[in-house]
Amino acid sequence: MDFSSKLLENAVNEVSQLPGIGKRTALRLVLHLLRQPKEQTQYLTRALDHLVNDIKLCKSCHNISDVELCDICSSHKRDESIVCVVEDVRDVMAIENTAQFQGLYHVLGGKISPMEGIGPSHLKIESLLEKVKSGVVKELVFALSSTMEGDTTNFYIYKQIKDYDIRISAIARGISVGDELEYADEVTLGRSIVNRIPFENSLRQS
Amino acid sequence: MDFSSKLLENAVNEVSQLPGIGKRTALRLVLHLLRQPKEQTQYLTRALDHLVNDIKLCKSCHNISDVELCDICSSHKRDESIVCVVEDVRDVMAIENTAQFQGLYHVLGGKISPMEGIGPSHLKIESLLEKVKSGVVKELVFALSSTMEGDTTNFYIYKQIKDYDIRISAIARGISVGDELEYADEVTLGRSIVNRIPFENSLRQS
Repeated sequence: MDFSSKLLENAVNEVSQLPGIGKRTALRLVLHLLRQPKEQTQYLTRALDHLVNDIKLCKSCHNISDVELCDICSSHKRDESIVCVVEDVRDVMAIENTAQFQGLYHVLGGKISPMEGIGPSHLKIESLLEKVKSGVVKELVFALSSTMEGDTTNFYIYKQIKDYDIRISAIARGISVGDELEYADEVTLGRSIVNRIPFENSLRQS
Repeated sequence: MDFSSKLLENAVNEVSQLPGIGKRTALRLVLHLLRQPKEQTQYLTRALDHLVNDIKLCKSCHNISDVELCDICSSHKRDESIVCVVEDVRDVMAIENTAQFQGLYHVLGGKISPMEGIGPSHLKIESLLEKVKSGVVKELVFALSSTMEGDTTNFYIYKQIKDYDIRISAIARGISVGDELEYADEVTLGRSIVNRIPFENSLRQS
């Protein structure tokens, strides 16, 4: 692409660094910014600047937070003996949306992925082990995505805590509520059958 | 969406104002910004701030430019008697990429669209009429998109300049080079037939 302006070229290059945004989309976005009032763009850039400069991670669960101890960790209504291990803030938001989990979270900040150069030391695993060792936690719920990286991370943590007196569970995998059996993939359907639950439980949860 | 942080919520809201970007995509982008080094995000915000604050429009063609008179308008190699009327900088870039046009451009900055509240006075039509009246321009090439808005804009300009001694043309519409006839829509194919050209010309242009 040949740009008529260095400023424009620079802005398009920076925007196209974002994941999933190519040069053409970046140009479309940048031209939109130019067309709207200056203030709007300044709101955007200020919000982003604020975010990266002032954002904090909760010192307990490592979730994104504006304060030292996040709302969930500091709530008296939550059961601190159950800790759900997730990858990032999106997973916390997804589980919170269900309103089915009353425990606390532990945000790892990623998954072990040798391909991307992410080892255990890059994740918040050390502080999770300390929580387990402290004896407050009675159950750990693994809720990482069921990819190779997720399974590896689960297993890495599992190996280090399996000797402690703690229940270790993983969220159930199965076919979605409302899905038809014939369209489900065999691995998922297989897990649904192997991990079947008492019929009364299935009534309770719906 | 319930956010654990006001800063995060704010940033996601601002990013999701961009066209074609919903809340989920905005969250994904913002989390990407948080994961990368702070400097990267500052490059982005600074590039955008610079852009909206320092960008200029060429005083002659109104294309985006860093200087008062853009490279195309100030070039001695271009034929100033032919002016191509386009909507925005993307159209200039597209036509420049073909390397088939040696004239100058006139960037209207949009199309007449009563639905969006864009009237003739919002566009750079006045200065185009002045160019025509000055007598330097011998041919005007309409290259707006062939939508109702584009056609309206073409016709609005046409009405005001048709009494001047000037050739008024529009870029050719027809089926794309390499396309098969059976898959072309009938309007496009119809125009291809009505506006057929001497065979020798089709050889020259390929």
